[in-house]
Amino acid sequence: MSNSDQTRVQSVNLPPDKVMHKLVSLAKRRGFIFPSSEIYEGLSSCFDYGPLGSEMKRNIKELWWNSMTRRHQNIVGLDASIMMNPRVWEASGHVASFNDPMIDDKTTKRRYRADHLIENHIEKLRRDGKEEELLRVQSAYEAVAGAEDSNRALYDIIIAEGIKAQDTGSGDWTEVRQFNLMFQCNMGAVADKSNIVYLRPETAQGIFVNFHNVRESSRMKVPFGIAQIGKAFRNEIVKGNFIFRMVEFEQMEMQYFVKPGTQAEAFEAWREERFAWYTSALGLRKEKLHWYKHDKLAHYADLAYDIKFEFPFGIEEIEGIHSRTDFDLKQHQEYSGKNMEYIDQLTNERYLPYVVETSAGCDRLFLALLADAYTEDTVDGDERVVLKLSPKVAPIKAAVLPLMKKCGMGEMASLLREELSAAHLVQYDDAGSIGKRYRRQDEIGTPFCITVDHQSLEENSVTVRYRDTATQERIEISRVREFLASKLITL
Amino acid sequence: MSNSDQTRVQSVNLPPDKVMHKLVSLAKRRGFIFPSSEIYEGLSSCFDYGPLGSEMKRNIKELWWNSMTRRHQNIVGLDASIMMNPRVWEASGHVASFNDPMIDDKTTKRRYRADHLIENHIEKLRRDGKEEELLRVQSAYEAVAGAEDSNRALYDIIIAEGIKAQDTGSGDWTEVRQFNLMFQCNMGAVADKSNIVYLRPETAQGIFVNFHNVRESSRMKVPFGIAQIGKAFRNEIVKGNFIFRMVEFEQMEMQYFVKPGTQAEAFEAWREERFAWYTSALGLRKEKLHWYKHDKLAHYADLAYDIKFEFPFGIEEIEGIHSRTDFDLKQHQEYSGKNMEYIDQLTNERYLPYVVETSAGCDRLFLALLADAYTEDTVDGDERVVLKLSPKVAPIKAAVLPLMKKCGMGEMASLLREELSAAHLVQYDDAGSIGKRYRRQDEIGTPFCITVDHQSLEENSVTVRYRDTATQERIEISRVREFLASKLITL
Repeated sequence: MSNSDQTRVQSVNLPPDKVMHKLVSLAKRRGFIFPSSEIYEGLSSCFDYGPLGSEMKRNIKELWWNSMTRRHQNIVGLDASIMMNPRVWEASGHVASFNDPMIDDKTTKRRYRADHLIENHIEKLRRDGKEEELLRVQSAYEAVAGAEDSNRALYDIIIAEGIKAQDTGSGDWTEVRQFNLMFQCNMGAVADKSNIVYLRPETAQGIFVNFHNVRESSRMKVPFGIAQIGKAFRNEIVKGNFIFRMVEFEQMEMQYFVKPGTQAEAFEAWREERFAWYTSALGLRKEKLHWYKHDKLAHYADLAYDIKFEFPFGIEEIEGIHSRTDFDLKQHQEYSGKNMEYIDQLTNERYLPYVVETSAGCDRLFLALLADAYTEDTVDGDERVVLKLSPKVAPIKAAVLPLMKKCGMGEMASLLREELSAAHLVQYDDAGSIGKRYRRQDEIGTPFCITVDHQSLEENSVTVRYRDTATQERIEISRVREFLASKLITL
Repeated sequence: MSNSDQTRVQSVNLPPDKVMHKLVSLAKRRGFIFPSSEIYEGLSSCFDYGPLGSEMKRNIKELWWNSMTRRHQNIVGLDASIMMNPRVWEASGHVASFNDPMIDDKTTKRRYRADHLIENHIEKLRRDGKEEELLRVQSAYEAVAGAEDSNRALYDIIIAEGIKAQDTGSGDWTEVRQFNLMFQCNMGAVADKSNIVYLRPETAQGIFVNFHNVRESSRMKVPFGIAQIGKAFRNEIVKGNFIFRMVEFEQMEMQYFVKPGTQAEAFEAWREERFAWYTSALGLRKEKLHWYKHDKLAHYADLAYDIKFEFPFGIEEIEGIHSRTDFDLKQHQEYSGKNMEYIDQLTNERYLPYVVETSAGCDRLFLALLADAYTEDTVDGDERVVLKLSPKVAPIKAAVLPLMKKCGMGEMASLLREELSAAHLVQYDDAGSIGKRYRRQDEIGTPFCITVDHQSLEENSVTVRYRDTATQERIEISRVREFLASKLITL
């Protein structure tokens, strides 16, 4: 009973600016993402992953982890603690320079990024066609980077141009001050400078400081990599776009240690592999992915590309691939007094390895997958919402639906669900019409609906309905397990 | 070529007090656990999971998650953020009373738990057989709980008995003060009371505040459960025993919401299921597990048992099973002003559900598994260290070892490893004698060593060596995949 030859599904055009609103609503309604502490009016840009969200996030992390550690013999995992010795962040440069320039409004008590005030002002002048002023402000702003006191330079522009806060219209400014983005706690009973610990602002440093521990214990030879998934925290003043920029977020990072001089080659290989992963493993549409090459490089990098995704709110980074040179190992060698060099056992060469880093944002990627999957179309003329998630990413792998609860269909479906649950997260649903149940599964991205009907009882077969095409095929019940397994290989 | 009929393995007796030292050393040497930020002399009771540790911890979490969510149709997952609205912790009682009584020594500037000073003193009197003093101090200490000012009562005992610090012999005491165990950060740019956020000291509250969000989005009917794995933080003054008590740790918690009056029954069912899980899913030895019933109940509980494990340093908790009544939902209802009641659709009854909680410490469990698995024995007279981990828990599932690199054995072994890696973490090792390689795998708990030898080339077969018995059997190479799969079912 195949109907794959019919074109029952018709796409519906969806303006990008409508998508975010719909996504946020669906994410809450169906249990992907809730605002954190919502009964207390939430907490600024903190979110909780609900029943479906936590499963989907687990899938993303599992796919990344396997693609790194199982697929590569020379990459091993690590799970370092969030709290580290504060000297780590002195060596990495975060204590001195992980800052944003902030300015306060004395009247409204509000705080702003000084650079953003100027950039917004420039944007306004451009919109208003004020060429002369635009050129003046732009040239002053470009000079900030070279200024001796960049805070002062930002302040001078804001005052000279009479820039006001866009939200309040007020402009009763303090000086510009640098504000460090690391969260601080006091460890131990006394709250003083001697026991400050930071919440790590990136997972990478946990890898660098463990370079020798990992190398020795796992007998690794350069080139080799260390992969890690974990939370990081940044006290961002400018947050937003749902889970895109949060103060608490999860990174999936891999640092690949290579012999100096070979970093360009390794970089190119990782650039290719990482880009391909988004389409082949996760099923993101290639045309939504873009390369961005950094012109201005961070002080530690000699080459840097970002993979960006076309979010409904703009093209934004989901992964950075950065050639970090030996900056980090060198810094840690200097600050710790420990030798961080690698000795090649064959040639007796000693060197500080160079590092090629692949650093992906798990939450951003989650949002990219939702946004890419969100579709509205019609099936046989009926409107539906469908999340076209890759089966590997989808939280629920299959739904087992008895056409009716009675006549033993409910029992047969329950048994089948139980059997399939040994390997996959599978739902049983007998509530409402079969059409309504299909829609419910479409909306959460379940790739396969397995229906137990009258014919099932007679000949031990079920129908498998494909989410995207709404087509069905009949297969033997004894083959369902194998069918699912074949669709859900995770590597 | 089976030699399972021989008793080649002889056990070696190992005094418990030697085990911890050996474990800590093995954990670091083989990449299970490293001291955090070790090149900077570490950070108080913070540890990093190395290549093998991170894999093993993933296995534990996966087994727990599957046993909760996949095995139970009425339990769903959640992944709430570590930072929550601070009102959550007012409602839960943590702001007011998650405290330890601390006392400072003005001379040495050291800080102590006041109650521990007294308990140590009591212990000393008991050892010294000073009956009269013992009775006096004990009765004073028992009266502390009922005292109007318990800090004062503790202080009075310390002064009256002239109790000194055991480590310094000094006793120049300040008053006793309550010290809150929650870590605090400031969110946003201003550091004042208005923007304090706490690092969650337990994951449970993330579940309670999401009760309605989860129930509605997943259409759950009481009884149902919400499962969560995540980090929690406690600014403990007394830490120690390796990863047993850390300031940053991972919990695996499930809150089961039931109709009031049915909690005793649910409690009993969960008590059984959770205890069984440790032996059946994880392979812990039953004789090492103990029940402990709480006599003094926390203010929120009407019944509480702990599952304790016989660690080398003592019998300590690895999981609490607590009947928490409706305390938490009631508190959140009061503090948030939101109705937290459940409405039974069939009977139209409204009530605040009662909660049965199962709360396991992932890091403690990790340590229990290591301690339980650590064995020294002899194989054919040769000493070895072997981690007798359950195959489900072991970080590396199999090692593929070519007897020699040449004659195509290396290539055959490589290909086999690659095939097996699609489903499991499998290592290839060709370095050193075969005996040395077996020992290396024994020491990290790899359950199966698969050896490619001369016969393999001729008849496409390999030997499988079982870790614990050191026995071997020969199987067809085409059957290895299926062999491993059958030994590694994770549910």
